[in-house]
Amino acid sequence: MPVTNEETNVELQALAAKKASRKLSLLSTEDKNEALYILANHLEEKAQHILIANDQDLKAGQEKGYDAAYMDRLALSKERISDFANGLRQVAELEDPTGKTLSSWTLENGLLVEKITVPLGVIGMIYEARPNVTVDATGLALKSGNAIILKGGSSALFSNKAIVKIMKEALNETKIPSDAVQFIASTNREATQQLFTMKDHIDVLIPRGGGALIQAVVNNATVPVLETGVGNCHLYIDREADVTKALKILINAKTDRPAVCNALETAIIHEEWLEKNKEALSTACKSNHIQLHGDDVARTYLPEAIPATESDWANEYLSLDLAIKTVKSVEEAIDHIDKYGTKHSEAIITENKQTARTFLNEVDASAIYHNASTRFTDGGALGFGAEIGISTQKLHARGPMGLPALTTVKFIMSGNGQIR
Amino acid sequence: MPVTNEETNVELQALAAKKASRKLSLLSTEDKNEALYILANHLEEKAQHILIANDQDLKAGQEKGYDAAYMDRLALSKERISDFANGLRQVAELEDPTGKTLSSWTLENGLLVEKITVPLGVIGMIYEARPNVTVDATGLALKSGNAIILKGGSSALFSNKAIVKIMKEALNETKIPSDAVQFIASTNREATQQLFTMKDHIDVLIPRGGGALIQAVVNNATVPVLETGVGNCHLYIDREADVTKALKILINAKTDRPAVCNALETAIIHEEWLEKNKEALSTACKSNHIQLHGDDVARTYLPEAIPATESDWANEYLSLDLAIKTVKSVEEAIDHIDKYGTKHSEAIITENKQTARTFLNEVDASAIYHNASTRFTDGGALGFGAEIGISTQKLHARGPMGLPALTTVKFIMSGNGQIR
Repeated sequence: MPVTNEETNVELQALAAKKASRKLSLLSTEDKNEALYILANHLEEKAQHILIANDQDLKAGQEKGYDAAYMDRLALSKERISDFANGLRQVAELEDPTGKTLSSWTLENGLLVEKITVPLGVIGMIYEARPNVTVDATGLALKSGNAIILKGGSSALFSNKAIVKIMKEALNETKIPSDAVQFIASTNREATQQLFTMKDHIDVLIPRGGGALIQAVVNNATVPVLETGVGNCHLYIDREADVTKALKILINAKTDRPAVCNALETAIIHEEWLEKNKEALSTACKSNHIQLHGDDVARTYLPEAIPATESDWANEYLSLDLAIKTVKSVEEAIDHIDKYGTKHSEAIITENKQTARTFLNEVDASAIYHNASTRFTDGGALGFGAEIGISTQKLHARGPMGLPALTTVKFIMSGNGQIR
Repeated sequence: MPVTNEETNVELQALAAKKASRKLSLLSTEDKNEALYILANHLEEKAQHILIANDQDLKAGQEKGYDAAYMDRLALSKERISDFANGLRQVAELEDPTGKTLSSWTLENGLLVEKITVPLGVIGMIYEARPNVTVDATGLALKSGNAIILKGGSSALFSNKAIVKIMKEALNETKIPSDAVQFIASTNREATQQLFTMKDHIDVLIPRGGGALIQAVVNNATVPVLETGVGNCHLYIDREADVTKALKILINAKTDRPAVCNALETAIIHEEWLEKNKEALSTACKSNHIQLHGDDVARTYLPEAIPATESDWANEYLSLDLAIKTVKSVEEAIDHIDKYGTKHSEAIITENKQTARTFLNEVDASAIYHNASTRFTDGGALGFGAEIGISTQKLHARGPMGLPALTTVKFIMSGNGQIR
C-alpha cells in the first residue's frame, strides 16, 4: 500500500499501534517495568537532544508572542527531563492494573466464570503545550499494556518529536514493540479529526487541554472519550462557616495555582456570613491580589468588586479573578452549582454537620469537599501515584484517573461442553 | 414558558427528569423497593388497559405486514404482563448498587477520602419493538436511583404509552417523583436526535435494538453512550476439538435463539478437523436446518455450502444461516476474529489447554469461552439477576450490564481546614 498522504499515514500509524497492542498485552509485568526503566535512562542520557529541540519550540513561541506562563510550561531543562524519567521509574513501581481477577464464580452447570482486567488496547491522547504529557501518558499507557497514539500541540512539536524519537529507540532494547508508541507529527486539523472516528483501531480518546480542545473532541469523536479537565469549581461558605478555615481555604484554592482545573472560580457566600466577615474577606483578597466580581448583594458589602455577568458564573477564569455569588441557603448554593458547575470539584465550609451532609449528598460532582481546599483533586495529592487526567464525566472513571482507568474487563468462561 | 412544539416538549421532559433524579438519588433502598412493588401491582391490576393498547399496535403491525417473529415479540398477554411485574419484584430484591463505599483512606494531613457509588443521574433509553424493555429498564433505573427517559419504537407506541401511564400513576403512591419516568411519545426522528445532544440533562444514552439504531446513536450522540448488542460471534473448532462437544455447542449456539446477539454467526474450523469430521458436521447442520455458507476449502468438504462473500464474514445473519471459514492454526482464527468480530462473544473448542490459553488471552472480546456455548453471555444466565443490555464497548462496563453499570462514583473529602 503506497503511503501518499497524511490520511494514509495516520491510518497506518493507528493500524501499527493496534497490532503492537496485541503483542504488548501479553507481556509480563517485569518486561513492562524493565522497559520503563530503559526509557527513563535513554531520556536522561539524551537530554541534550531534547533541549535543542525545545529551544526551537521556545524561539517559535517567542515569535508568536506567547505569555510568560505559557512559555514556562513549554520550557524544559535537564532537571525537568530527569523529573520525566523519574516519573517513568515511579510508574514502573506501581502495581500492574491488568491480569487481576475481579471476581469468579461457577454456575450450577459447572461453567467457571472469571472477570479479569485487561488493557483497553489503543489509547489516543490529544493534548496541548506541555511536553511532560508525552512522557507521562506513554509511561501510564505502556505500564497498563496499552499502545498509545500521541497528538500533541503544535507549539511543543519539536520537543515532542525529539522525546518520542528517543522513547521509540529505547523500546527497541525492550520487549515492547516500538510501534506501541505513535506520534502524529502533522499539525493540520485533518490529522486530528481522523483520530476522532477510527473506532476500529482506537479504543478511547483522552483529550487534555483547554475547554475548546475538549469540546472539539467530545462533539466530533465517535471513538469513546474520557472527558477531562474543565473545572468551574465552587466554594460555598455557609452561614455557620468558621472564618479562619473559610479564608485560608478560599485563598489557597484561588491562588495556589490559578490556572489549573481544581482552582476555585466562584465563591458562593451566605449573606449573613458575608455581612459579618466582609472586612476580613476583603482584606484577604486584596493582599492576595484577587480581583472580585460580585452580584448586587455582594457589591453592597464588597464595593471593590466589579459587577458579575452571566459569563462570570459560567466560565473558568484560570486567573486571580474570583466571582462572588450571595445566597440565603445551602439549597440556593446547590442550585447555583447545579446550573453552572462542571462536575469537577466543589467545596462547603461549615461547622454544621447536617448542612455539610446535605451538600455532600446533593451536589453532583466528581469530588466534594467539606472544610478542605478543592486543590486536592489530583492523582498525586490523593496518593494514586500518577494520573492520566481528571475525568469530569460519569462513565468508566470519575475524578483523578490512575492506572486502573486504562483497563477494561474480559469475562473468561471455562467449560466442558455446556450449552443453554 | 409556553409549550408550543415537540422540541420544547422533549427538553422540558429532560429537565423534569433531571430535577426528579436529584430527589430520587436521596431516597432509601426501602423507599425504592416499595415503589417497585407498587409499580408491579399496578401493572397487573391494570393489565387489561395494556392489552387493549397492545391490540392497536398488533393491528397496525399486521397492516404493515411485519413477520411472525416480530409480531411475537410485540404481542402481550396477561401472563407476559405478570412476567414484567415479577421482573420488577425481582429487581426490588437485588442489592442496591448505590451508597457503597468502594474504598476510603486518610491522607497524612488528616483529610478523609471516601469513594462511594452514586446513581448516574438521568438515563436515556432508546429502543425498538419489545415493550418489556419499557418495564425492565424503568425498574433497573429506579432501583439504582436514576431517572429514565424512554424512547421506544413506533411499532409498540400504544403499548408503551399505556405501560408508562400506569407506572407514572403508580409512582404517585410512592416517594419516587413521577417525573423520574419520562416517555417520548413523538415518533419523529427529531425528538430522538434531540436526546443525542442533551449533555446537560442526560448522563448516558443506552441504545437497544438493531445495528442501524445503535450506529445512529453512536455516530450522532455527544451524550456518552453505552454501546450494546451487535454480536458477530465466532466458534473456533480447533484441530484438537472433541467432536461431540464441538457439534453440541455449534448447534446450540446457532439454533437455540438465532435472532439474539449471543447467537453464533461464523464457525471457524481447522482444516484437519473438518476433513475428519465433515460427515458428522454436515449431518448435524442438515438435521437442524442450518444453511451453510463456506469458503473454498470448506466447500470441498461441505458441497452443500453456498459460497461465502465478504458480507457473510462481516454481518450477523440472525437466522439459521452459518458461515464456515477454514484455517490452518489458532493464530489464523484469532486474526479472522480480530478483523470481523464485534467484541461480543467468541468461543474455542479444543482439548489442548495451551491452545485454549492462547485463544483466551489474545482474543479481544467481552466474553470468551473454552468448550462452552456463546449463549451464556446474558445477565440472567450469568446470575446478575437482571440486565440493562450487553455492552460491546470497553469503557465503563463490558459484557452483561447489571445494576452496578448504572452507577458512578463520587469522592467525598472530609477535612478541618486542609489546604495544599
